[in-house]
Amino acid sequence: MRKILVIGSGKSTSSLLKYLLDKSTAENLFITVGDLNLNAAKKLTGNHQNTKAILLDVFDDTSRTDAIKDADIVISMLPARFHIEVAKDCVLFGKHMVTASYVSPEMQALDADAKAKGLILMNEIGVDPGIDHMSAMQVLDRIRNNGGKVILFESFTGGLVAPESDTNLWNYKFTWNPRNVVTAGQGGAAKFLQEGTYKYIPYHHLFRRTEFLDIDGFGRFEAYANRDSLKYQSVYGLNNVKTLYRGTMRRVGFSRAWNIFVMLGMTDDSYTIDGSETMSYRDFINAFLTYSPTDSVELKLRHALKIDQDDIVWDKLTELDIFNADKKVGLKKATPAQILQKILMDSWTLDPHDKDMIVMYHKFGYEKDGKKHQIDASMVVLGEDQTYTAMAKTVGLPVAIATLAILNKKITSPGVQIPINKEVYEPILKELESFGVTFHEKEIPYLGYNPLNN
Amino acid sequence: MRKILVIGSGKSTSSLLKYLLDKSTAENLFITVGDLNLNAAKKLTGNHQNTKAILLDVFDDTSRTDAIKDADIVISMLPARFHIEVAKDCVLFGKHMVTASYVSPEMQALDADAKAKGLILMNEIGVDPGIDHMSAMQVLDRIRNNGGKVILFESFTGGLVAPESDTNLWNYKFTWNPRNVVTAGQGGAAKFLQEGTYKYIPYHHLFRRTEFLDIDGFGRFEAYANRDSLKYQSVYGLNNVKTLYRGTMRRVGFSRAWNIFVMLGMTDDSYTIDGSETMSYRDFINAFLTYSPTDSVELKLRHALKIDQDDIVWDKLTELDIFNADKKVGLKKATPAQILQKILMDSWTLDPHDKDMIVMYHKFGYEKDGKKHQIDASMVVLGEDQTYTAMAKTVGLPVAIATLAILNKKITSPGVQIPINKEVYEPILKELESFGVTFHEKEIPYLGYNPLNN
Repeated sequence: MRKILVIGSGKSTSSLLKYLLDKSTAENLFITVGDLNLNAAKKLTGNHQNTKAILLDVFDDTSRTDAIKDADIVISMLPARFHIEVAKDCVLFGKHMVTASYVSPEMQALDADAKAKGLILMNEIGVDPGIDHMSAMQVLDRIRNNGGKVILFESFTGGLVAPESDTNLWNYKFTWNPRNVVTAGQGGAAKFLQEGTYKYIPYHHLFRRTEFLDIDGFGRFEAYANRDSLKYQSVYGLNNVKTLYRGTMRRVGFSRAWNIFVMLGMTDDSYTIDGSETMSYRDFINAFLTYSPTDSVELKLRHALKIDQDDIVWDKLTELDIFNADKKVGLKKATPAQILQKILMDSWTLDPHDKDMIVMYHKFGYEKDGKKHQIDASMVVLGEDQTYTAMAKTVGLPVAIATLAILNKKITSPGVQIPINKEVYEPILKELESFGVTFHEKEIPYLGYNPLNN
Repeated sequence: MRKILVIGSGKSTSSLLKYLLDKSTAENLFITVGDLNLNAAKKLTGNHQNTKAILLDVFDDTSRTDAIKDADIVISMLPARFHIEVAKDCVLFGKHMVTASYVSPEMQALDADAKAKGLILMNEIGVDPGIDHMSAMQVLDRIRNNGGKVILFESFTGGLVAPESDTNLWNYKFTWNPRNVVTAGQGGAAKFLQEGTYKYIPYHHLFRRTEFLDIDGFGRFEAYANRDSLKYQSVYGLNNVKTLYRGTMRRVGFSRAWNIFVMLGMTDDSYTIDGSETMSYRDFINAFLTYSPTDSVELKLRHALKIDQDDIVWDKLTELDIFNADKKVGLKKATPAQILQKILMDSWTLDPHDKDMIVMYHKFGYEKDGKKHQIDASMVVLGEDQTYTAMAKTVGLPVAIATLAILNKKITSPGVQIPINKEVYEPILKELESFGVTFHEKEIPYLGYNPLNN
């Protein structure tokens, strides 16, 4: 039996484990799921004969090293900041490792040692990062191998609700970490490249500079810029590209309404609000508006942000019940962002029957034989239920497929890796198709941002 | 002869030195001006018999301690961050010290040692901080001594150009550190207290939440909130006040136009712009706007911020020549704030004949005998020329007066002090009047922010 250790039984472990268990007999696999919460791990492993759950405390050296020593390969599904101790042990004890997280500087520092031992530390092999890398590199490599010169690359991902569960005016519910949604875009100006020019958008204007994307059968989406669109410029071999933009997808209208919270200062996570615990939702909103003994919070907000009486964003605000004078915040020494998250979770928490949806959209612009071309590629994955969510599938399946491919020596390049090489992305994307994770490509006239260049 | 050491021959040392020299014969004073730039110090001391200039490097222990040992009292006019080495020596060698800067935590830590030796380390005795403390405490103490209960305190200061030099559409020129003007308000939400409620304004809305102030003979001003209006709440004895607000004064319309730079992200000092050196002013503006091969930078800016064709803010922008495609930024790896400062200095640098102006405005609301009252107090100081500026007078004179008062044992409380006690502010404010630094008080109906409470 080949032994796989999965550390962490969080949301994305379900699809990962199901994939491995379905292959466990044919592939001779035994999967141990370790978690600080033994019951959570047991709930996942169930009664299947080729798996077991164990108590694993990643901060307890004995607990961690015993489990790692016993495995042939280790998957860490822990939050990203906890990977490094696992990774160090994997290098020490000669085990391969797979994560869906961004490569941290500490992880990168293990590259030489991993290579010396012939070990693979595969990272960024979830959905974003992960499927975005693989699907982008597949098309980019194909364009370049056919003699094309890439001039534009834009890439967008969004975690949303499936159309059948899309039941509120924001067309949004929390399908992943709510905190990241509330603080998205903070920490510096967004930077990207447009027709050869660097462009910068400050946080407080980010949600007013969206662009539209249409996906056949799913309608229109919008996207706002990620903070650093240039992060993978050299990794993807795009140093001479004219346009490079990465963004986050929402349904149309989300960003314009979200900008109200940004403008009022309600997404700020850098200071605490005095007396937050006993404050009502209405008090919270009022803390960002001028004082008036007579004017309503509603009219002060409309006036501050010049919101017309018949503007749909107003309905979005009232749907969240933010003007309620009876609902209490109930959080001690909370930041505006924490309070806003609390208010949003009242409305945006998934119901038990709700399904999620992952959308991804790439634009590839290129020149070939003196002419400009564009390929748009889009992917939509729908969740099946609240266990096999679209997020769990798109994060867990690539991790699982890569793990088995490493065990079967189909992925062989050692060191700290991300899935941008053909030996990795080609078989994984192929296999993902059988799980409904497919990209639809279409050739369209090159648009870019400069029609005069056509 | 009583020996005074003045370290630093910057802008505010002129009025300070003139005051001390004018009194030097009668008061038996000898003033040594020490500076890293000996010529700058010599230019100030001139040929007066009761003064000399010396080379003083505050980072050279010998140079610094020799000069301090030789003095009876030390005035540091250095930038605030350089005071601490001087202060430590003053405590070590038993010298009093005076500065116009905010008390740093390191300075405060010297309090016990200073008290043990009977030394006075007087700080925050310039204009803001300084005259604001003294003039506020004088009225606050008077109200309280007469049985009044203070319910509102608002305080505003501005460094502007004198009306005769007020020659541009912004009604503004740099009369002090331009960098502080460009980055003003950054680093967190502004917080204040209004009618018993904490209010918060995010940076990107700060310049849209101004209030107006009228000063007889000088017309109307506006003010935006300082970051922490509550800083002196307990020091001033205002823990039970309902409204507490501190702000910065500008001429009306400045803030609304300034907000354009804020909204576009041009005041950001946290990252550098690629290729800033060879960029034109127009390129710089364009970096914050959408790409278009055809639309002008002007129209893109108007559209992004919804600026009407006949809006006066547009004239303010064009007056700065920000759309010039030939003027180069010429700064390597510059932040947006540094580039904006460069552009503004083209237009907002004082001409040799220009005069500056310091304005201050306090509002005091109080209850007495069951009735509400309000006192407004305002000060306007005009510069005489570019040596004896309003800034130099209002910063330098209180420092000089306090220094002599300490030498003459009229100020006696030892330790790290700020000028909030009557023994300090009463004689200093009295003497400042003879230099034209006067407050005009008027009783007005209590306004506050809640007319229903009247």
